[in-house]
Amino acid sequence: MKLLITGGAGFLGARLARTLLARGHLNGKPIEQLVLSDQFEAPADLRADARVQARTSPLLAQCQALKDETFDGVFHLASAVSGECEADFDLGLRSNLDSTRALLDALRSQSDRGIAATRLVFSSSVAVYGPDPAVPLPSIVGDDTFPAPQTSYGTHKLICEHLVADYTRKGYIDGRATRLMTVTVRPGRPNGAASSFFSGIIREPLAGEASICPVSPEVSHPVSSPQRTVEGLITVYEASRDAFVGRTAMNQPALNVTVQQMLDALEKVAGPAVRARVRFEKDERIASIVANWPKGASAARAAKLGLKPESGFEDIIRQYIADCASTPAALKGLSA
Amino acid sequence: MKLLITGGAGFLGARLARTLLARGHLNGKPIEQLVLSDQFEAPADLRADARVQARTSPLLAQCQALKDETFDGVFHLASAVSGECEADFDLGLRSNLDSTRALLDALRSQSDRGIAATRLVFSSSVAVYGPDPAVPLPSIVGDDTFPAPQTSYGTHKLICEHLVADYTRKGYIDGRATRLMTVTVRPGRPNGAASSFFSGIIREPLAGEASICPVSPEVSHPVSSPQRTVEGLITVYEASRDAFVGRTAMNQPALNVTVQQMLDALEKVAGPAVRARVRFEKDERIASIVANWPKGASAARAAKLGLKPESGFEDIIRQYIADCASTPAALKGLSA
Repeated sequence: MKLLITGGAGFLGARLARTLLARGHLNGKPIEQLVLSDQFEAPADLRADARVQARTSPLLAQCQALKDETFDGVFHLASAVSGECEADFDLGLRSNLDSTRALLDALRSQSDRGIAATRLVFSSSVAVYGPDPAVPLPSIVGDDTFPAPQTSYGTHKLICEHLVADYTRKGYIDGRATRLMTVTVRPGRPNGAASSFFSGIIREPLAGEASICPVSPEVSHPVSSPQRTVEGLITVYEASRDAFVGRTAMNQPALNVTVQQMLDALEKVAGPAVRARVRFEKDERIASIVANWPKGASAARAAKLGLKPESGFEDIIRQYIADCASTPAALKGLSA
Repeated sequence: MKLLITGGAGFLGARLARTLLARGHLNGKPIEQLVLSDQFEAPADLRADARVQARTSPLLAQCQALKDETFDGVFHLASAVSGECEADFDLGLRSNLDSTRALLDALRSQSDRGIAATRLVFSSSVAVYGPDPAVPLPSIVGDDTFPAPQTSYGTHKLICEHLVADYTRKGYIDGRATRLMTVTVRPGRPNGAASSFFSGIIREPLAGEASICPVSPEVSHPVSSPQRTVEGLITVYEASRDAFVGRTAMNQPALNVTVQQMLDALEKVAGPAVRARVRFEKDERIASIVANWPKGASAARAAKLGLKPESGFEDIIRQYIADCASTPAALKGLSA
């Protein structure tokens, strides 16, 4: 089978690619070709795999050519992140809305040519929820909570969920949208996402660096580990149409955790010296964005597919430490 | 003040234009210029008004030029209807989604030029509701019912609601989306809307013609008269930002009525001979679309603005008969 991952050089996209290549199959079929589309170059280990073809340019620029191609499946992860979308309104619309629209139209041409509709998993986000002043947000958001996004990023994700649903209803694609929780711990450097600190307050102290937490310790948030998130995307892909149930997006399972619980877990796993590298310094811009996010999420439909949240934040930290085995600099704070 | 009505030559747009011109003011300011944008020519009586400028071409083609203009307010009514959108997927996306996006970007340029943000009323639709198999639809849909559209038309309306909300949040426009109920009785001929029969079963018998009802008599639906709908749009325009409450779309008041009740009212107002011109003949295509629509709607937020539904369907029929005073052919069934 031939697969496409948009955002395939990104953190989640590359991890998904590695997981798929290691499995060798998806939905019972061998993976023969894996196209990674991204504006950035794909990691070397992926480019070295004979099954991988990396295409490095903005997704929007690639979509016209996709009209003549045939894919069995697509994971559509490419997206500008929340901070970028707030800072640059046009960039957000172009990267998230226009690109998704162009991708869906390209894939639709496949069904126009009489070929079976492509299966597509769209990575939406818990950011679709937000309190409309007229509709209070429950403390835990579920699959059927009224979505009223308070950011451009969340708005684009919700809009694309509905595009995916309508292209699917018409039979142009076999689309499934699933709302990812905040993925932590992300490796590397802080990115433009307002949620970046949910990784930073763990990653930086483990690397021996100071980290600033821009929100107060009682802030609660639904999170998931990178590997659990990747497995969730694959499960949603492999679900039968009937098992997915419903047209609208499905929440991924979340571990609902406070910043305080995250730091307590860090102290338990890595010791008090590591924990002490985090200090609180409120950033009003970030705090005001985060204040509009849900405190936690439930995932009843995902549970029916067998998906479960992590059992505790210690597990998420341990997964990160295991992931860093080949990059000792990322863990030099542990031995300091 | 200078106003724009998109879809200004359409049935609702022209009625809104006549109502505004007769009032002479909006939100306390005199109406000096009224631009009617429509792909069809505006009615002669409107073109004859010195305050009116009619622009006849697709909205999408007009938006680039709008970037250099300044409007105090906009009523955005232009839209392909539900039947058209189901029949021609690209037409629907172009007419409803791309045109709205281009309009919002044009209006946004006004705020970029340092001029106060345009106030915009977007006519959304009760068609945004639909039963997602995972989220059963309540029998009466309210402002905060989970919207899961089952048609392309409803999908586009919901997407545009969220675009309006986000452009408003950013301060680019002062937008308000309000969900119109099915407007009946519409004059003229049947249009491409799946809801067209809600007017046809009253209009045709009054004109002395036979009419076919494509759904069963127990089908219930939220409706509103043309004049009540126009008044609702004006009230939403004139509401202060605080009084509108909330960011998401507000339902217009609905009279929730069954087809049987509509026909009983017709018999009461116009007599059994008129009623007898309607016969039932199920159209599976239309019935399947209508089956996914809500049976009724509530409008708690609109009620806070003083908006109320009609008290009975007889009133709606009487309004139509009064509207037809100058076109006796429309009522020749009454005297037959």
